[in-house]
Amino acid sequence: MNWLDQVQWDPQGLVPVIAQEASSGDVLMFAWMNRQALQQTAEHGRAVYFSRSRGRLWFKGEESGHVQQVHEIRLDCDHDVVLLKVTQTGHEPGIACHTGRHSCFFHRLDQGQWQAVDPVLKDPEDIYPQQS
Amino acid sequence: MNWLDQVQWDPQGLVPVIAQEASSGDVLMFAWMNRQALQQTAEHGRAVYFSRSRGRLWFKGEESGHVQQVHEIRLDCDHDVVLLKVTQTGHEPGIACHTGRHSCFFHRLDQGQWQAVDPVLKDPEDIYPQQS
Repeated sequence: MNWLDQVQWDPQGLVPVIAQEASSGDVLMFAWMNRQALQQTAEHGRAVYFSRSRGRLWFKGEESGHVQQVHEIRLDCDHDVVLLKVTQTGHEPGIACHTGRHSCFFHRLDQGQWQAVDPVLKDPEDIYPQQS
Repeated sequence: MNWLDQVQWDPQGLVPVIAQEASSGDVLMFAWMNRQALQQTAEHGRAVYFSRSRGRLWFKGEESGHVQQVHEIRLDCDHDVVLLKVTQTGHEPGIACHTGRHSCFFHRLDQGQWQAVDPVLKDPEDIYPQQS
């Protein structure tokens, strides 16, 4: 049986994906993949997601240059969630978030308030090409 | 504004949640919360999820005793994914998975096959009360 057929795809043909930095263990981001995205990720060793907002494959780093090199692909007990162990390339330290931060999980609940507790490492205007 | 109102709940009123072991950085499991589950998690410092299959709140460890003590609650850039930093209690080393393993992410893709690469720490029949 093909390994892609063993993934429990949701009714939209997607699976949730957690990207974790291999060196630090930091959880960097959460995204989705369809079958083609997971296949390309495994084939090329670079993270390819499916953008639900754009309705197309999203090669991580295609605009930012912040490509994710994939070391391991894991699947959970129910076969319906994927975990990637990655190296976040393109900046040192790695930037996974479109806000220019290391991780997307930069809000921490403190005293009943969400606080942005991690620094912006690079201005998003310097990461992404200007829209004209 | 109430911090719970700042979470982008999906059309089913749920948000995906990643549980990460605070000490090791290991990603233990992935589950869902509704508003009440997140509120109770914050209030009591123990993970409460929403079981989609059972359609009710699921106090993690209610059957197994494998309660998750919650140290940090984080929210991502889009306000639609939660990350918990937890201590997995009830067994040493911690067991988060219903299969008796440390983490739910025990399948690794090797040579085009999903391989179960992490050990069962406790027999699930010894974790869960027998169904009669």
